[in-house]
Amino acid sequence: MNQAAVGTRERILSATGTLLRRQGYAATGLQEIAGQSGARIGSIYHFFDGKEALAEASIRASGAAYGAMVLDLLQNGPSDPVEALGTVFAQAAADLVAADYADACPIATVALEVASTNDVLRQATSEVFTAWVEGLTHWCRRLVDDPTDARDLAVAVLTTLEGAFILARAQRSPEPLLGAGRSITRLAEAMRA
Amino acid sequence: MNQAAVGTRERILSATGTLLRRQGYAATGLQEIAGQSGARIGSIYHFFDGKEALAEASIRASGAAYGAMVLDLLQNGPSDPVEALGTVFAQAAADLVAADYADACPIATVALEVASTNDVLRQATSEVFTAWVEGLTHWCRRLVDDPTDARDLAVAVLTTLEGAFILARAQRSPEPLLGAGRSITRLAEAMRA
Repeated sequence: MNQAAVGTRERILSATGTLLRRQGYAATGLQEIAGQSGARIGSIYHFFDGKEALAEASIRASGAAYGAMVLDLLQNGPSDPVEALGTVFAQAAADLVAADYADACPIATVALEVASTNDVLRQATSEVFTAWVEGLTHWCRRLVDDPTDARDLAVAVLTTLEGAFILARAQRSPEPLLGAGRSITRLAEAMRA
Repeated sequence: MNQAAVGTRERILSATGTLLRRQGYAATGLQEIAGQSGARIGSIYHFFDGKEALAEASIRASGAAYGAMVLDLLQNGPSDPVEALGTVFAQAAADLVAADYADACPIATVALEVASTNDVLRQATSEVFTAWVEGLTHWCRRLVDDPTDARDLAVAVLTTLEGAFILARAQRSPEPLLGAGRSITRLAEAMRA
């Protein structure tokens, strides 16, 4: 692909990612993606084999980017790992407020919609969650020695963050994320080796 | 309303609740609700002022029922409140497996879809979450004396459960719910007054 083609493909993926996390899969049509990305429908079909294939590529791309961002925040956060976990929730709360409660987890909305109705997309969300848990488990080993406990802490961080995103968006308040951050900090402190 | 009318209205609400939690709001049409409930479209319009009003009534009804069920499970669970919290996650895991990963939280799918796109439905999901947090906070006072800490524990229970439902449905595995239950048990133990 030449540079222009890469740019168009990226713009289509980016617009799809935004629409999927804000309103989900069923509400998002190719027409709207074309409008938001400035690409023609024909151009979307040039790069992707229809709406499902585009959504799958978007889930994998935005999932990888989000996982890398969270791990980056942890690596470059406070040197105390318990404090570093707290900053993930504080940053998520600040970002959500700045985005007027629109942009939270890139794949959760679609994950709930498709879990029982579209196995291609369910599989994509499953693989993203698995990669996130593995990345977080690896990082949590600096806090918790036992691999099973480190994995439990990683699952707790991810599930609490996901649930807090739901409440924070519904209630238009950062408080669920801040409260969840306090609980994860408490849990991590209790589990610290 | 006579008994037959009550029955029809309940069947419409029940079918709507099932479709909303399994596939969400955008994917669900009145035609499908009519088919699932055995009611005619005209009958749906007799009881509800269109799809949005029906979804709002469904969110409030299924939200109240689910909140009552969870509190009931806690009240009638093990006398040790930390153990009782653990049983909520174990039961949620067993129920989800029994439902072939289709039926989890009755309002989360819609909550994420509508948070930025439909303020009537967002408000309904927000009020359900607020009622759940209040009910759980009240129950958590038997474990944690400080009202703010009890509320933090309640938010942790709810957000972890919500997030674990997402992962469990996507991965078609009870493990995220079981792991989340272990973490909530640890957290509650650490916070026990």
